[in-house]
Amino acid sequence: MTKPLQLHEDRLFPAEASQRGVARRLYAEIKDLPIVSPHGHTDPAWFAEDQPFGNPAELFIIPDHYLFRMLYSQGVDLEDLGVPRRDGGPVERDGRRIWRRFAEHYHLFRGTPSRLWFDHALSVVLGIDEQLTPESADRLYDRLSERLQQSDARPRALFDRFNIEVLATTESPLDDLAHHKVIRDSNWDGRVITAFRPDPVVDPDFEGFRGNVEELGKLTGEDTAGWDGYLAAQRQRRAFFSEMGATSSDHGHPSAATADLDPGACRTLFAKCLAGDGSPEDHELFRAQMLTEMARMSLDDGLVMQIHPGSLRNHNAGLFERFGRDKGADIPTRTDYVAGLKPLLDRFGNEKALSVILFTLDETSYSRELAPLAGHYPILKVGPAWWFYDSPEGMLRYRRALTETAGFYNTVGFNDDTRAFLSIPARHDVARRVDCAYLAELVCTHRLGEDEALEVAHDLTYRLVKQAYKL
Amino acid sequence: MTKPLQLHEDRLFPAEASQRGVARRLYAEIKDLPIVSPHGHTDPAWFAEDQPFGNPAELFIIPDHYLFRMLYSQGVDLEDLGVPRRDGGPVERDGRRIWRRFAEHYHLFRGTPSRLWFDHALSVVLGIDEQLTPESADRLYDRLSERLQQSDARPRALFDRFNIEVLATTESPLDDLAHHKVIRDSNWDGRVITAFRPDPVVDPDFEGFRGNVEELGKLTGEDTAGWDGYLAAQRQRRAFFSEMGATSSDHGHPSAATADLDPGACRTLFAKCLAGDGSPEDHELFRAQMLTEMARMSLDDGLVMQIHPGSLRNHNAGLFERFGRDKGADIPTRTDYVAGLKPLLDRFGNEKALSVILFTLDETSYSRELAPLAGHYPILKVGPAWWFYDSPEGMLRYRRALTETAGFYNTVGFNDDTRAFLSIPARHDVARRVDCAYLAELVCTHRLGEDEALEVAHDLTYRLVKQAYKL
Amino acid sequence: MTKPLQLHEDRLFPAEASQRGVARRLYAEIKDLPIVSPHGHTDPAWFAEDQPFGNPAELFIIPDHYLFRMLYSQGVDLEDLGVPRRDGGPVERDGRRIWRRFAEHYHLFRGTPSRLWFDHALSVVLGIDEQLTPESADRLYDRLSERLQQSDARPRALFDRFNIEVLATTESPLDDLAHHKVIRDSNWDGRVITAFRPDPVVDPDFEGFRGNVEELGKLTGEDTAGWDGYLAAQRQRRAFFSEMGATSSDHGHPSAATADLDPGACRTLFAKCLAGDGSPEDHELFRAQMLTEMARMSLDDGLVMQIHPGSLRNHNAGLFERFGRDKGADIPTRTDYVAGLKPLLDRFGNEKALSVILFTLDETSYSRELAPLAGHYPILKVGPAWWFYDSPEGMLRYRRALTETAGFYNTVGFNDDTRAFLSIPARHDVARRVDCAYLAELVCTHRLGEDEALEVAHDLTYRLVKQAYKL
Repeated sequence: MTKPLQLHEDRLFPAEASQRGVARRLYAEIKDLPIVSPHGHTDPAWFAEDQPFGNPAELFIIPDHYLFRMLYSQGVDLEDLGVPRRDGGPVERDGRRIWRRFAEHYHLFRGTPSRLWFDHALSVVLGIDEQLTPESADRLYDRLSERLQQSDARPRALFDRFNIEVLATTESPLDDLAHHKVIRDSNWDGRVITAFRPDPVVDPDFEGFRGNVEELGKLTGEDTAGWDGYLAAQRQRRAFFSEMGATSSDHGHPSAATADLDPGACRTLFAKCLAGDGSPEDHELFRAQMLTEMARMSLDDGLVMQIHPGSLRNHNAGLFERFGRDKGADIPTRTDYVAGLKPLLDRFGNEKALSVILFTLDETSYSRELAPLAGHYPILKVGPAWWFYDSPEGMLRYRRALTETAGFYNTVGFNDDTRAFLSIPARHDVARRVDCAYLAELVCTHRLGEDEALEVAHDLTYRLVKQAYKL
Repeated sequence: MTKPLQLHEDRLFPAEASQRGVARRLYAEIKDLPIVSPHGHTDPAWFAEDQPFGNPAELFIIPDHYLFRMLYSQGVDLEDLGVPRRDGGPVERDGRRIWRRFAEHYHLFRGTPSRLWFDHALSVVLGIDEQLTPESADRLYDRLSERLQQSDARPRALFDRFNIEVLATTESPLDDLAHHKVIRDSNWDGRVITAFRPDPVVDPDFEGFRGNVEELGKLTGEDTAGWDGYLAAQRQRRAFFSEMGATSSDHGHPSAATADLDPGACRTLFAKCLAGDGSPEDHELFRAQMLTEMARMSLDDGLVMQIHPGSLRNHNAGLFERFGRDKGADIPTRTDYVAGLKPLLDRFGNEKALSVILFTLDETSYSRELAPLAGHYPILKVGPAWWFYDSPEGMLRYRRALTETAGFYNTVGFNDDTRAFLSIPARHDVARRVDCAYLAELVCTHRLGEDEALEVAHDLTYRLVKQAYKL
Repeated sequence: MTKPLQLHEDRLFPAEASQRGVARRLYAEIKDLPIVSPHGHTDPAWFAEDQPFGNPAELFIIPDHYLFRMLYSQGVDLEDLGVPRRDGGPVERDGRRIWRRFAEHYHLFRGTPSRLWFDHALSVVLGIDEQLTPESADRLYDRLSERLQQSDARPRALFDRFNIEVLATTESPLDDLAHHKVIRDSNWDGRVITAFRPDPVVDPDFEGFRGNVEELGKLTGEDTAGWDGYLAAQRQRRAFFSEMGATSSDHGHPSAATADLDPGACRTLFAKCLAGDGSPEDHELFRAQMLTEMARMSLDDGLVMQIHPGSLRNHNAGLFERFGRDKGADIPTRTDYVAGLKPLLDRFGNEKALSVILFTLDETSYSRELAPLAGHYPILKVGPAWWFYDSPEGMLRYRRALTETAGFYNTVGFNDDTRAFLSIPARHDVARRVDCAYLAELVCTHRLGEDEALEVAHDLTYRLVKQAYKL
């Protein structure tokens, strides 16, 4: 039994007729604006090499922790979904069998954004016209396998078709940005830039921290065994990243703690952490100090600073042991911004030349902390609804909780933040639709004129992100 | 002036017409499904003895802390509502006067679920057709008094009329389950089972902990003065409860803390707590360790484990002194699941044969902690909106906050969790209506097809609870 | 291009037709009820002297931290908005230039309550019929300047026109209430009362605490260097405030901590804090003890106690240094009521003669802590949505989170809590509209009859505030 797959043109708009009408009109005006993607995790190799993507399982399932975490929660082994083991042990290699297993569990995604993204990628991006079910799984696998080999399904062709104006990837300071160089030197005019993500060299808890800092020294010719050389090396890599197009740095810390120690204390602390003698509190303090150092460097080199705190990484010890990082086991925690950011804000909070974008995985902070902070401090903006909240309800809660205190103009548009390249149009479309739905609610409850709502819709889709990320 | 009492057939459905239409259609298909009640606090004696309930005050008011706490908050003495004092001192004994007092304050329940449940019990269960007001109080008291003496208002008749497929009560390991034996040996075929609630013997802060542990030893013939005998006794009672129909255990701890100590440390800690030498931190650690021990036993005996954390019991010292436990003075507190559960999850989080259902009184944990955890760990599911959140708004927030990350299939249907037997149909009906309202919203905003929504409605009402609780 | 300014008569009502109809009917019945304003920060000098307000910038912008914090967050210097510096250094003094700057940034307030209040003050209060834009700024400045000089735009005339039945201001115990005496002795019959706000003499962290306590001694003739004299002085000032019309005290503490120390410990702690030898923990403990002392005094003198916890004052160190208090840099923090209030509740929680109204800046406490506490303890009520949450979405969240557990009758109506006199009608109107919108939702989802909703609307607007504040 074939079930047709067709996305409804009014999806995510309010059901009530007057609001739906306004939402439609607003959306019609902004739906075709270019995609600006200032923060994400696509692989620059795709755009450098422009090879066809792999089979449907390799493209959609094996790398997507949103998808396989849900199946894992219902008792499906990651091995059976083809997720590679750290020890190289056997896992399923037959894409078709992985795909069938996924289809058997596809009902688990009812009511989730993954369902919206996946259906959008299948239908709008790849032209599939029937729903994924256990019955249709094989047919779809065949059609997708064929479709993915066609030249217009290659990375650069899709990038162009998606109408992406600029796409940022994220790299470690130790990355040589070779793929970005290839892209830049190619005759393709797609704008793919990098972002500076120093976690491996600023977080003493990161795997291989000590070695990473050594490598940083080799790359830069600085003596990274000492605090001054270490900072100089960071500055040098930031300059290199800037030159390669980066306009932002990104910081994925477990908390929002910042510190403002004197140079002597910094030296001692750095030495201790590097020697492996640091306590957990020392490591936290070092990360905290490094946020302030990075803010100081941003004041000089103009990189926009993004802080992504509050994820307890690798919560599942057994799974981490077997499969490594980024396997759907990062869990949000309560995050305190008010005390945490104070040292950095006391030092730099009133600097007009600095821009810090705050994200959260703790929605309670929207109205209690982030909106009041961003509605006051010149350096602060609030990043879009993130990770588990990049979803219709998550985005609505975000707008409802933030707007009344921080307004729209202390936010920065949308981030897709994804490794799943084919989901990028879907994610931006969801954000645009939800913003229009929210604005329609304001219009129909007479809190905002429709003329102004249209201007805001345009700002949220396009203008704010360009301005906030200096793109 | 008589005010008619008639529940509207569209109650709790969205006001907007298209959503209301979908909600009606979904509800029509699931409203008559049997009630499965896997967690509650009804008295098994009712079903063992099948005696008529007492007068309206004894049935509805005196035992219901949802009701008398509200009147108490507005200055009504519990004595005047007939709530028994610990010291046996005088309280109101005239049911009619209690009922009148309640009627005078019935407006306090406007906008609360208690109002919905109470009106449903009066009208749908007992056939009352006018609203409770100070003016109607006496008439209703007479009619109800008469009605409650009729044979079809006895516990077993109501159980059958309510279409209850199975009802779980909750007992201490020290309970002999005599009532359950009577029910089992009777010719009545109603399925009333027990659930294993070990708080009195695992929580050193529980009244009479030491004596309870001794009694556990006598009941089982184990030496419960030592750690090994204590654990063996627990295992023995779990086996007895299982034999009497239990499929689950239940754990009402102040926090979600778990621990995974080595056996030597367990022995020492147990001895200290039993001797009355434990600090508050020792008591917390002992409870934490016992959750992990109970998980270990569940792996062996298959009982589904329910964790109900986050209630600070008996917050009102004076009231506790005068009236004892369960008098409406238990207050929710912030609850941390991410760090709290880690020791248990590190030990057993990936076991497919184990099932742990998490509840919360801290709604901030839905999207930040519970959905991300349950959407990843195979052993975890999220229990329904609990206690103060067993309400229309509470349930909507629950679905909106959980579904996008954990989906529907990491939830387990509804629990009525009540001592108020006559409110059971009302509570399940509210849950069914709110779920249909939520699903209608997904359908009308084109996030889910109506065919799939119908399947989900059926799952949420019936299939998931049977599966999650092994019923 | 002139843009007309006209508030829609259905603003803030639900868009869906049946709910809008109910909301309209409810609102029509309560919209003209008198304003009762039991908590606010208007200047009693206005009503004592009845002089015209200053120019539009002086009236609307310079004193309003809601407005200038938003512009500051977007890079506008407070100096350029005319906010006075502590050192008396130069700031903009030209009202017209300040007004223009504000108009250029007025789009920042889209979606915020400030926008609703400001437009209401302009149009409904002052008769302006075009929107504020950069283009209209000068015209509006001229019209407003003229309008504000007219006799019917003076404080007393507006007070009468606003239909204010009673308005409370807030004063320190050190205030001589001279303006209140002038008002009382005048032939004007407007009821302007004071409220007792002892923060300057009970908070050891308050600027000039020691000197304030000394001054308290001089004012009262008590020896405030000792604990007993200090308490006696407080009692004396409370009596004076009561005599001058106060019915409430107000306490703006950083947390909700209370304490119940024995008198010896109080003496020692007070001496330490007064001598300047107190640690931050001592200061917190002293404030905590003073809440309990104030509750004890309330039992005697009948003042209703308001607790406004959870604001971290003067978060921006540089800004505080330059401009002082109340400059938009107070940031909410997580607040614990359950443990915090326990000492006070253990002592006085069951006293029928005591009334404590709790406010919060931490919305997570509504359903988790405040509703369960206020739905049980006789002394507790929940104050209205406060500060950043005095907004349409904030009020809706407040009702949705509180009502199901605490009902309507453990709340106390609306507080405008404002220094912006001209915004008072707008703020009360927003509250009335949002309450009617919420009630319409209950009616149309058949949770409450429209007859009862009307009674509740009246209660929320008028009766509850009079009763709760003894007005």
